[in-house]
Amino acid sequence: MLTLKKEYRELAPSERVLLGPGPSGVDPRVLRAMSTPLLGHLDPEFLEIMNETGELLRYVFQTSNTLTLAMSGTGSAGMDTILSNLLEPGDKAIIAVCGVFGERMVDIALRNGAEVKVIQGEWGRIVEPEAVEAAFREVPQAKLLAVVHAETSTGVLQPLTDLAAVAHRYGALLVVDCVTSLGGAPVLIDEWGVDAAYSGTQKCLSCPPGLAPVTLNDKARAVLHRRKSKVPSWYLDLTMIERYWGQERFYHHTAPISMVYALREALRIIAEEGLEARWARHELNARAFLAGCEAIGLKPFAQEGHRLPSLITLRIPEGIDDVAVRQFLLREYKIEIGGGLGPVKGQIWRVGLMGYNSNRLNVTLALTALAEALKAQGYQASAAAALEAADKVYTGQE
Amino acid sequence: MLTLKKEYRELAPSERVLLGPGPSGVDPRVLRAMSTPLLGHLDPEFLEIMNETGELLRYVFQTSNTLTLAMSGTGSAGMDTILSNLLEPGDKAIIAVCGVFGERMVDIALRNGAEVKVIQGEWGRIVEPEAVEAAFREVPQAKLLAVVHAETSTGVLQPLTDLAAVAHRYGALLVVDCVTSLGGAPVLIDEWGVDAAYSGTQKCLSCPPGLAPVTLNDKARAVLHRRKSKVPSWYLDLTMIERYWGQERFYHHTAPISMVYALREALRIIAEEGLEARWARHELNARAFLAGCEAIGLKPFAQEGHRLPSLITLRIPEGIDDVAVRQFLLREYKIEIGGGLGPVKGQIWRVGLMGYNSNRLNVTLALTALAEALKAQGYQASAAAALEAADKVYTGQE
Repeated sequence: MLTLKKEYRELAPSERVLLGPGPSGVDPRVLRAMSTPLLGHLDPEFLEIMNETGELLRYVFQTSNTLTLAMSGTGSAGMDTILSNLLEPGDKAIIAVCGVFGERMVDIALRNGAEVKVIQGEWGRIVEPEAVEAAFREVPQAKLLAVVHAETSTGVLQPLTDLAAVAHRYGALLVVDCVTSLGGAPVLIDEWGVDAAYSGTQKCLSCPPGLAPVTLNDKARAVLHRRKSKVPSWYLDLTMIERYWGQERFYHHTAPISMVYALREALRIIAEEGLEARWARHELNARAFLAGCEAIGLKPFAQEGHRLPSLITLRIPEGIDDVAVRQFLLREYKIEIGGGLGPVKGQIWRVGLMGYNSNRLNVTLALTALAEALKAQGYQASAAAALEAADKVYTGQE
Repeated sequence: MLTLKKEYRELAPSERVLLGPGPSGVDPRVLRAMSTPLLGHLDPEFLEIMNETGELLRYVFQTSNTLTLAMSGTGSAGMDTILSNLLEPGDKAIIAVCGVFGERMVDIALRNGAEVKVIQGEWGRIVEPEAVEAAFREVPQAKLLAVVHAETSTGVLQPLTDLAAVAHRYGALLVVDCVTSLGGAPVLIDEWGVDAAYSGTQKCLSCPPGLAPVTLNDKARAVLHRRKSKVPSWYLDLTMIERYWGQERFYHHTAPISMVYALREALRIIAEEGLEARWARHELNARAFLAGCEAIGLKPFAQEGHRLPSLITLRIPEGIDDVAVRQFLLREYKIEIGGGLGPVKGQIWRVGLMGYNSNRLNVTLALTALAEALKAQGYQASAAAALEAADKVYTGQE
């Protein structure tokens, strides 16, 4: 028998204020719901909980799509699900790439045998409808256009209605990544003409990572049912999974019961607050935080007018050590923020004010801590000035 | 704005004694650990928790395989992962089918473009080495042999050493499903010569569903790294995921933090009890339960000598209404047991005594409840006789 070489202590992680690109802080109510003793995955009571979770997801997605459910994996499983279910070998896809998650979409589409036309955008900027139009002129038979609504690597919020119009004019589906926007900024699936979308639980829904909400309208669903080949991944095959979440209750896999409990509670909290109030809260706190940052000379990275309220990206000032600042924040203030990925590594910070964590307490804490961290590196930064600027936003004196 | 049509009440599921094929009852310590506030998925403390989870998984799998980790999905994601990572289009695979999970393996292998030679076994029986030998004679160039160690649909425990010998003689890998055996019956990956295996958390590990432990030895890992094509599913691509769980800490997806907390605690509890004591406990309670069942005339379904200690399958007596009995158990005793799947639907029951739930309290409760349920249908069944038979096992008077 192989034996263990050490003792494993009781789980006792340090306290953290999760102000990075996700996971975000989880509402204690969600943690409590998650720790409820389990029902079986085919128990009539659990099936009703799945129904309710579906209803609440439709509300948060602002959709009446029947095929709206939570995949049993993290946000990236949602991306994989939507693209691998809608694309088949030989299909053509147009994908806008303005950051890491656009790149990931391309990788997944290629794995599924699609021919991909990439619209190469700029990191930190949106993709313009003209660029999409040009791509469709080149590949008019494209089956879908995929774009990231909230690019977690850049903090950009992509407008979608114009892109939907272009895609639909060419008979293509619009597929959208709203991992970092759902529950923190307007996501109006039906009104905007989004045909399929996916998200994650660990951003603005303030639920632990582990599920990927997805929604497909009847047009997207029809594409699914017209497939000539089976979806390569059995685990992510929506044609089977919709039969488990739907009336038929066909056994596919054992749903992650506790995660569904958590998601239902997180969605219930959103319903209590109301989506519009929640969006306004995110917008206010993001504005206050950014005003405070600008007061100490930190410039936003994302294009003006297209900034995510849930994830604020900042340019790291000349001469400041990225890693030293983030280590200072973690050590002295228990705050986690994100660094830049890929081409903007060492150049930007990503500060999440998501869901439960989007509040004045965290704005105050983050501004104070950032100012202190910068001062520790000899940078002129006054926490007082930052807080005063934020206060003006909160009191309507901008 | 779309609005909600009803109020969503606080989560308050009924109490359940989960004695079905899984999910099983979860140790309260695991639920508590799961509800711990979150660390970020790249936090140094979380990475250490992943390391420890990997070490504990190696102990439970009885392996020194470096590539041992928990996939971010339920047990079926583990099956999908192992087969889709090891098989490429045109590969040949031999798969033994004696139940639902063998059938599922065939489906997944076919989706990955493999040519599958099925060894059609009998539901409720093991597959014999001679049948495997015959399959290899027919397909000597098979890349792998896949078998289910613990067939959850039949309650059969498949011996593996002889099959490993045959597979290795033909230069093939042995791939094993130990979803319902890991932590409840001996699983000796290294000693038995298993090259790759997967499991789930929601059976004998007594952790909620949501993660799929997998392990691959260097031979299987080499196959992975010699692939000519990318793994079709980005989400399940082990070549990337091993870089997140390994030293490199390459970001792939956001790990389901809370589920990892839960799994670490569940594994820690196993380490405290010790694997051998845990196996003995499962074996004792299964024996006592089956003795009680036989005392009231219920016959085991699985082949003698090859019965799972974690999942006992029983033939439903002539004239007894399957669904009525299970509804009685749920209504009167809050007990969930499983019915038969596919060809044995309505013919067998599946009673799980897994992990935390494998104890004398549950054996007593299940025997009493089963006897009462049968009596309610006019079947001669004495709870007293059943309990007496079980007692003889517990007191060593068999």
